[in-house]
Amino acid sequence: MNDRIARLRELLEQPLLVTDPTNVRYLAGFESSNCALLVEDDRVRLFTDFRYIQAAREVDGVEAVLTKRDLISELADELSGRVAFERVLPYGLYEVLRDGGLELVPTSGTVEKLRAVKEEGELEQLRRACAVTDRVFERLTGVPFVGRTERDVSWDLAQLFHEEGGEDLAFESIVGAGPTGSRPHARAGNRKIGAGELVVIDAGCTIGGYASDYTRTFATGPLDNEAKDAYQVVLRAQQAALDGIRAGISGVAADGLARSVIDESPFAGKLGHGLGHGLGLDVHEAPRLSTESSDVLEPGNVVTVEPGVYLEGKFGIRIEDDVVVTPEGIENLTGFTKDLIEVS
Amino acid sequence: MNDRIARLRELLEQPLLVTDPTNVRYLAGFESSNCALLVEDDRVRLFTDFRYIQAAREVDGVEAVLTKRDLISELADELSGRVAFERVLPYGLYEVLRDGGLELVPTSGTVEKLRAVKEEGELEQLRRACAVTDRVFERLTGVPFVGRTERDVSWDLAQLFHEEGGEDLAFESIVGAGPTGSRPHARAGNRKIGAGELVVIDAGCTIGGYASDYTRTFATGPLDNEAKDAYQVVLRAQQAALDGIRAGISGVAADGLARSVIDESPFAGKLGHGLGHGLGLDVHEAPRLSTESSDVLEPGNVVTVEPGVYLEGKFGIRIEDDVVVTPEGIENLTGFTKDLIEVS
Repeated sequence: MNDRIARLRELLEQPLLVTDPTNVRYLAGFESSNCALLVEDDRVRLFTDFRYIQAAREVDGVEAVLTKRDLISELADELSGRVAFERVLPYGLYEVLRDGGLELVPTSGTVEKLRAVKEEGELEQLRRACAVTDRVFERLTGVPFVGRTERDVSWDLAQLFHEEGGEDLAFESIVGAGPTGSRPHARAGNRKIGAGELVVIDAGCTIGGYASDYTRTFATGPLDNEAKDAYQVVLRAQQAALDGIRAGISGVAADGLARSVIDESPFAGKLGHGLGHGLGLDVHEAPRLSTESSDVLEPGNVVTVEPGVYLEGKFGIRIEDDVVVTPEGIENLTGFTKDLIEVS
Repeated sequence: MNDRIARLRELLEQPLLVTDPTNVRYLAGFESSNCALLVEDDRVRLFTDFRYIQAAREVDGVEAVLTKRDLISELADELSGRVAFERVLPYGLYEVLRDGGLELVPTSGTVEKLRAVKEEGELEQLRRACAVTDRVFERLTGVPFVGRTERDVSWDLAQLFHEEGGEDLAFESIVGAGPTGSRPHARAGNRKIGAGELVVIDAGCTIGGYASDYTRTFATGPLDNEAKDAYQVVLRAQQAALDGIRAGISGVAADGLARSVIDESPFAGKLGHGLGHGLGLDVHEAPRLSTESSDVLEPGNVVTVEPGVYLEGKFGIRIEDDVVVTPEGIENLTGFTKDLIEVS
């Protein structure tokens, strides 16, 4: 069995039933929407249904167990004793296990804690995903924006990621022009992009399952002073965070590095989200950089650093890099420029 | 407020906290990865965070309530009394609500029950998604297969769906050639497609959020007799199901219509999954057609009919249509041919 299972066992006080599909993928290299991994001291069982059982049998060091589609019911019948489960488990499936007579111990963040500290092989995948994303953003600056819809540009991104070697999109690309950009998570819509607007582009791809996640904000022609000032504030806020993040800083303090720059500017209070989040097999994972975070950064964490300013009904600006936390500071995986780029 | 909320209220014995994002979308026409809808007799509240609050405020007939990112904690503080919640809620969030002093009633399938019976407007979206998918499969027959990878063909599908007007892919397309096809849910991989193979293509798109979901199995040149026979068995199994499905039949009986054809053939036992599933805002929703189903079909259900035969290490065959259940039988939304098509 691999080293990850060995490291997980050191954290366990009883057998752990892993049901989060990304956690199963991390531990066993096995991808399925219907699976569970039971990690005990002396054995590891991988449960899945007919559709995935062939792949499960190819996983080294685990016993593949065929179940019916209703996998948790079968586990409730088969297992006994004291078993930890992940709090992401739906309540209804918890009930099924409970009614099967198991002594259940809720846990959270155990596998996520391992995942948050990347191994060299994982960093390599992330570097590759970021290299692809650098090339895509570079090529995107040559694409026409004005007069086309946000959705059109989103499709350009899909094509560019494919051409540059991204395996999949890491998430549905955000293209938020003008007022759309002031909604940090608006999807690309049918609004036509106008001249003199700010366009928030938030996109990434996966390599070997590992995600990149960049944001840049382009201008479609000359901007008014408010927009230009806001761009510089976001840029300064991001630089302050990049300069200050290193192992040992808390997620709250990292967030504060950028937030304080914005809150001391005319755009005080306009960063409505956290500074960033861990990045790996999931686009949002541990650790968190935010006012609500309870994390402390460790060497090998990979996080986004993405301050923004959002003026409702007017525009949004966000600048996001992906960085590796090191003992002394960061390794910035993002090469693409942060100068304000004018596109046509 | 809309008719769906009114119909939901008739099913409720206490306020319902809806946390499933697709259920929220169905009831309120609001899309977010972090939201909850509290439906009471006299009011409906839509909770979401900063990123989505502008969109929430545009929803008719609901009170939009801004929360922090940790939305459920805030609900635990704000709400009181007896509240039903959906069993899909993660156990950890259930704990948060419980510790807030709420009297919690677990429920399942309430909104899903409404969603399973489509309104005319929903059927219209599904017909459009299927019309796009018909054109995509038609064009796919002209694409080169042999010597290219499954992933290449999967990308062709993405481009064709985009060109024909699909808004998004309904799911990651499956392209399973030769032995890959014998794994019903294998993703498209880097295996090169050979001549004389069967290629399972399972793909669909969304229109207005509503998903199509087709499967066809193409041949890359002449097949051996076993493969040809298996194709005819799957075709006969599907036709038996299409002929017999109507309102009033159980999900188990519908499944049996196709399964019995396969089980009386030389490929007995080789249909390892259920016959089909409901289709709508989710690609897999109520009702289910399977040996484990507890559903009875109603007029207005939209279901897939997708028998298959899987010979481990050799090939898979699956043929899947999308149909509307009517009092007398079905309306088949899938126009694309089921003849065995040879591609090059």
